[in-house]
Amino acid sequence: MSDYPPLDPDFENRIRKSFQRQSIMSTIGAELALIQPGEVHINAPYDKRFIQQDGFLHAGTITTLIDSACGYAAYSLMPADSRVLSVEFKINLLSPAQGDSFRAEGRVIKPGKTLTVCDGKLFALNDEQEKLVAIMQATMICVPAEKSRGFPAAVERSM
Amino acid sequence: MSDYPPLDPDFENRIRKSFQRQSIMSTIGAELALIQPGEVHINAPYDKRFIQQDGFLHAGTITTLIDSACGYAAYSLMPADSRVLSVEFKINLLSPAQGDSFRAEGRVIKPGKTLTVCDGKLFALNDEQEKLVAIMQATMICVPAEKSRGFPAAVERSM
Amino acid sequence: MSDYPPLDPDFENRIRKSFQRQSIMSTIGAELALIQPGEVHINAPYDKRFIQQDGFLHAGTITTLIDSACGYAAYSLMPADSRVLSVEFKINLLSPAQGDSFRAEGRVIKPGKTLTVCDGKLFALNDEQEKLVAIMQATMICVPAEKSRGFPAAVERSM
Amino acid sequence: MSDYPPLDPDFENRIRKSFQRQSIMSTIGAELALIQPGEVHINAPYDKRFIQQDGFLHAGTITTLIDSACGYAAYSLMPADSRVLSVEFKINLLSPAQGDSFRAEGRVIKPGKTLTVCDGKLFALNDEQEKLVAIMQATMICVPAEKSRGFPAAVERSM
Repeated sequence: MSDYPPLDPDFENRIRKSFQRQSIMSTIGAELALIQPGEVHINAPYDKRFIQQDGFLHAGTITTLIDSACGYAAYSLMPADSRVLSVEFKINLLSPAQGDSFRAEGRVIKPGKTLTVCDGKLFALNDEQEKLVAIMQATMICVPAEKSRGFPAAVERSM
Repeated sequence: MSDYPPLDPDFENRIRKSFQRQSIMSTIGAELALIQPGEVHINAPYDKRFIQQDGFLHAGTITTLIDSACGYAAYSLMPADSRVLSVEFKINLLSPAQGDSFRAEGRVIKPGKTLTVCDGKLFALNDEQEKLVAIMQATMICVPAEKSRGFPAAVERSM
Repeated sequence: MSDYPPLDPDFENRIRKSFQRQSIMSTIGAELALIQPGEVHINAPYDKRFIQQDGFLHAGTITTLIDSACGYAAYSLMPADSRVLSVEFKINLLSPAQGDSFRAEGRVIKPGKTLTVCDGKLFALNDEQEKLVAIMQATMICVPAEKSRGFPAAVERSM
Repeated sequence: MSDYPPLDPDFENRIRKSFQRQSIMSTIGAELALIQPGEVHINAPYDKRFIQQDGFLHAGTITTLIDSACGYAAYSLMPADSRVLSVEFKINLLSPAQGDSFRAEGRVIKPGKTLTVCDGKLFALNDEQEKLVAIMQATMICVPAEKSRGFPAAVERSM
């Protein structure tokens, strides 16, 4: 858990609703595993539909999981009625993404009124062992309620 | 096209075979649209199974397309029997990923015996118009033939 | 030059004044070489006071030059009385930074009311030749006039 | 300290010698503050010669300190007679770099025969307090002894 108190006591419910609208999460079989202020974990199975040429989970799938974990970690500290979008992120791939399943972890390093910086990790899980597969450094933006009507035109102006 | 001559005259065929093994490409409906030495394009449709909470293509799907375009752009200049892996990349999301379809472009900026640096873009296509959605800066690594036996243990040692 | 018209006709003068306050620029002997809407170049000599262990310009000095070029490229399109700050950047080092002098180029890829994304390059200059040394992808933030009083407390709140 | 044993028992002496050759370190008044296997800290004073337009330490100076801390953290685990170079890094600037002095910390996240991935931080120190100013994710490359003759031509071929 981060040291930052949530602005919206209903943050968990708000994250669950948003996660359900991210159809890619159900498509890849991902599930929310932890929701705390400033920290969110997402689990997903190994799935042969989302691999690269050597049978490892594709870097894009790894990214999908960590980006969503970071986005929701940031979103946990944002006000009610706001929206969250990824501004940018950078990922280093440390080991081949092999495993029975995977756990993405997103943590807020620095929350802000506009921008929130997060730290993300992906672990591969095999039997009792886990291995660090990738690390991410990400910037998320809060789109406040008054700008999120007329979405996405408003988003572009605010970006 | 880049200014770099391919080491392997059969690079196009080699890329097509690898692309077919990337099951995520057929899962998201992606197709190779251009293969030249140092430059590869990949097209994909808008698909509601791969969106985020606001209906835009998820940043992870955007990343999947650009990462593969960059990886194959790098791979076009690598020797026969080598393998290519993503070391790291950074992406900036510039506009909401809305469109009928998308085109990812990967270009080699600097090829190297071990590391190749690429530049990637994703465009959203609507009617006659196209719009820049995201840009990537990526590093790819060449795993030479002699190290790619006993994969992926050999990969890890070389990384 | 970018395709974006400046909001402030006095942008060149505003950039020159800011550059003079960046004491690091005179310390490393850097000079503004081009100022256009959305594009700024900075030149600097090779200087043995700013090298790394092998005699190349240190990656931090390379970064200093490209970051300032990108920051001022972004600033050229921002309103009068605003301030510019670097949010984040990523740099790839392509070749050893050897040369008689160096030219950093910053270009706006996507301007925005809050965030502006830039592309940066550093070239090493030797006799008649130039060589690409490094590339950067950067995000800059505009701190509007009303928030830039009480600086930097206001900066932190807006970040 | 990281969990990785050093390959070269003389790593500390090797780092101190390399640091002395990085003239930029003495130019900005930086000093090695901690050298352990997989972790290196560098301290530096606030210095008005290296600031940006608002009086904060320039992002390039911040980068210089964290990049060297990460580079030497990686170098601590590399073999004797090898060289280390920065491949790429990404930095997020979290707070204005104001302080009496600064401490950069570099840590190895994943060492490798060729590439080592590091995590870096910069703290501003004021009286008894310290504040996180910036975070970095970096990739370093090991140039083995047999390739480091005829430097830097050999470097380029290996990159």
